[in-house]
Amino acid sequence: MDELEKRFSLLGVEHAPGQEVNLQAKALDLQGPALAGRKVDFSHGDVDAFPPPPASKEAFLQGFAEGAAQAYTEYSGKKAIREQLAADLAAFMGAPVDGDKGLILTAGTQGALFLAVNSLLPYGGDIAIVTPDYFANHKLAAFLGATIHAVPLQYMDDENRAGLDLQRLEEVFAAGVQVFLFSNPNNPTGAVYSAAEVQAIGKLAKKYKVAVIVDELYSRQIYEGRTFTHLCAQAERPDTLVTIIGPSKTESMSGFRLGCAFGTPAIIERMEKLQAIMTLRAAGYCQPLFRVWFHEGPDFIPQRVAAHQEIRDALLDLFRKEEGVTVRSTNAGSYLFPTLPELTVPIADFTSIVKELAQVIVTPGTEFGPEWTHSIRLNFSQDKEAAIAAVKRLLVIMNRYRK
Amino acid sequence: MDELEKRFSLLGVEHAPGQEVNLQAKALDLQGPALAGRKVDFSHGDVDAFPPPPASKEAFLQGFAEGAAQAYTEYSGKKAIREQLAADLAAFMGAPVDGDKGLILTAGTQGALFLAVNSLLPYGGDIAIVTPDYFANHKLAAFLGATIHAVPLQYMDDENRAGLDLQRLEEVFAAGVQVFLFSNPNNPTGAVYSAAEVQAIGKLAKKYKVAVIVDELYSRQIYEGRTFTHLCAQAERPDTLVTIIGPSKTESMSGFRLGCAFGTPAIIERMEKLQAIMTLRAAGYCQPLFRVWFHEGPDFIPQRVAAHQEIRDALLDLFRKEEGVTVRSTNAGSYLFPTLPELTVPIADFTSIVKELAQVIVTPGTEFGPEWTHSIRLNFSQDKEAAIAAVKRLLVIMNRYRK
Repeated sequence: MDELEKRFSLLGVEHAPGQEVNLQAKALDLQGPALAGRKVDFSHGDVDAFPPPPASKEAFLQGFAEGAAQAYTEYSGKKAIREQLAADLAAFMGAPVDGDKGLILTAGTQGALFLAVNSLLPYGGDIAIVTPDYFANHKLAAFLGATIHAVPLQYMDDENRAGLDLQRLEEVFAAGVQVFLFSNPNNPTGAVYSAAEVQAIGKLAKKYKVAVIVDELYSRQIYEGRTFTHLCAQAERPDTLVTIIGPSKTESMSGFRLGCAFGTPAIIERMEKLQAIMTLRAAGYCQPLFRVWFHEGPDFIPQRVAAHQEIRDALLDLFRKEEGVTVRSTNAGSYLFPTLPELTVPIADFTSIVKELAQVIVTPGTEFGPEWTHSIRLNFSQDKEAAIAAVKRLLVIMNRYRK
Repeated sequence: MDELEKRFSLLGVEHAPGQEVNLQAKALDLQGPALAGRKVDFSHGDVDAFPPPPASKEAFLQGFAEGAAQAYTEYSGKKAIREQLAADLAAFMGAPVDGDKGLILTAGTQGALFLAVNSLLPYGGDIAIVTPDYFANHKLAAFLGATIHAVPLQYMDDENRAGLDLQRLEEVFAAGVQVFLFSNPNNPTGAVYSAAEVQAIGKLAKKYKVAVIVDELYSRQIYEGRTFTHLCAQAERPDTLVTIIGPSKTESMSGFRLGCAFGTPAIIERMEKLQAIMTLRAAGYCQPLFRVWFHEGPDFIPQRVAAHQEIRDALLDLFRKEEGVTVRSTNAGSYLFPTLPELTVPIADFTSIVKELAQVIVTPGTEFGPEWTHSIRLNFSQDKEAAIAAVKRLLVIMNRYRK
C-alpha cells in the first residue's frame, strides 16, 4: 500500500451519515421478523419536519436575480454580506468580528473545517482531538498525515460540564501539539463545555501557543437551564483562534451548503487562498441566505428549541427504561449518543440490522472513534411521533441481540 | 518561514480573477487622463450578457421543494441525477460513463480539480503541468509540496493544434512524473489539442503509467471549422484517467457552483471520500441543475457559439491592428491571450493601471506562470459592444506605456 493509498484507507465513508444508499448488501444475522413503521433517518436532521426559515427561498431568488454581481463574488464571499454577518456574529458571540479581514463564507461548515485544519496543521503535524467528537475531525487529521493526540471526554460523569480531561490536554499541549480542534456543543454527545472548561482551554492554549479551532455549529440550540460560553469572547483566549458556525443545523439550511469561519486574520487569509483553489467560493446565488440567518424572527429559535427539547425528553425516557442502556441528556443541539448493553454483533452490523428490520437509520459509535463500540448516535431533529415509534422499534431489535 | 507558511506563500490570490475588490491601493504610475466608458470585467464571463438556460431557476426551485430528499444526498451526488448525467456525458464524449461508480458531482469544476489532484498526487510528488494553463493548476500542485515539471505549449505556432512539446512531455514522464494535468480547450489561450496530440498524450501516459487529469470545461463551445478530441474516447488512453467538466462557463451556471468528474472508479471513490471531509457534497438544492445541462434545447449551444465567435472576431481585429501585439485565434471557449509589446511597467501594474484609467479588468499573464510577463487574458463572454469599447480603451492605455 503506497502512502496515498494508506491515507485514503483512513477516510472510509461507507458507514458515514447519508451514505446508506451505497452500502453493499452484506450477509447479516437477521433475527426475528421485520417491524413495520415509517422510515426514520437519524443520521441527519429532517428538514421536512423542521424546514428552513420562510424567507430562505426569497433570499435565494434575489441572489439569482442579481445575476453576475452575485455569481462571481470574492473568494471569501461578497463583502456586503460578510459585513452584515460580522455584525450579527459579534452580537451573538459577544466579541468583535472583523467582516473585512477576519471572516470567510464557506461551502458549509465542513468547508470551513477543511480550510481551517489545512491552514493551521502542517503535513505530518501534531493535532489534539477530543474523543468522541465529530467523525470528520480525525479523518481530516489523518488525511494530512498528522499524529492524532486523543483527549477523552468523560461525558457521562456530570451534565453540568462536558468532561474534558484537562490534565491530558495539558500533557499533549506540552508535548508539542500545534492545533487543538473540538466541537462545542460536542457532536455526538450534545454536551456543552462549562465556562470553567472553556476558560481552561483558552489559558492552556495561550500558555503553550497552540492554535485552536472551535466548531460551534449547534450553539444557538441551547436547552432550558443551560448556558453557553464562547471561547472567542474570553479574556484569556488562544493567540490563534478560528471559530466555525453555520446555518445548516438548527436553521435547516443544509441544502444550500453554507458555513463560515472567523478569527485570526492571518489564518482567515490562508483559508481564502485555499478556498480559491478548492471550490472558489460558497455558491454565489446561495450567499444571500446569510442575510436570513440571525434574522429568522423572534420566535423561530425559541420555538425550535422547545420543540427539540420535547423530542429529546421523549427519547431519553425510552432509552432510560431499558436495562443496560446509559445516555447523557443533551445540553444543546440535536444529538443523543446512548451506550447500549453488550450485543451479539458488532455495532456497525447492529446499525445495518436495525435499518433492515426496522427502517431506522442510526450512526454507529465507531464512526466517532474506534473505542465507541457500544454507542450509537441519533440526530433527533425529526418528526416527533415518527422518532418515538422508530426508537421503540430500535429497542425491540436491540433486545433481540442482547448477549 | 515555516513549511506551512511557505506553501501558502505560493497561493497568492490578489491578482486572481474576481479578487479586484480586495486589491490594496498601490501607488501606480498613471499616465494621461482616464477614459470614460462602461466598466467591463474580462476576468470572468458576464452571466448577465449570457444568462443561464431559462429552465435553471425552475430546476433549483424543484430541488428546494423536494426538501430533505435533496438537501442530504450521497457525497458523490444524488444517484438518480448521476445516472441521467452519465448518459448525457456518454453521448457527448462518445465513451461510456459509469454513473454509479465512475462519476462524482462536485462543488464546481474547481472542486473536481482539487479532489482529483489530491486523490492522485502524493504529498511532495511529481506532476507535469502545461505552461500556460489554468492558473490554479500550479497552485494546487504547489500546495501539495509537489515538484512541478513544466511542459511548454507553443500555442502561437499553428492554429490547427495546441502546440504541446511532446518531446519534453515524454522526458518528464520518463523521469518519474506521477500525474499529468492539462486543460483542453486550453485556458488561457483557447487552443484545442489536435487528434494527434491527444492520441500522443494517451499513448505516452499508458507507456509510462502516468495518471492523467484532463479539464474539458470549455469543450462544448467549439468554433466553426474546429473539431474536438476527447481523450476518454481514444483507443489508447491512460490506465488512470479523470475527465473534468461542468456547466459554469458556456452554460453560465457558475452561481450554483456545479461541476463533475468521471473516470477510473478507484479514483472517483477516493474523490468521494475526500469530498466527504471537504464540502460533504455539491449543494443539494443546486444538484437538480444538472438535469438542465445538455438539455438546454437544440438552439442554445449553436446560438451561444455563434454569438461568441462574433465577439472573438471583433476583438481579434482590434488586437491585430496594433503593432507589436500578437494573438492566436480562439479555437474553443471564451479566452484570448494576446502578447503585448514591451511596456514601461510590469504586466501586473499595467492591468491595475488599465482598471484605474479605463474601467477594464483583465488578468495579468503572470497568473498563468511567471514567464508570461507580456500577456493578458480576456474572457470575452461579455456584451459585445461593451467589450469592443473596452478593448479600444485598453489599447489606448497600452500605447501610452509602450517602451
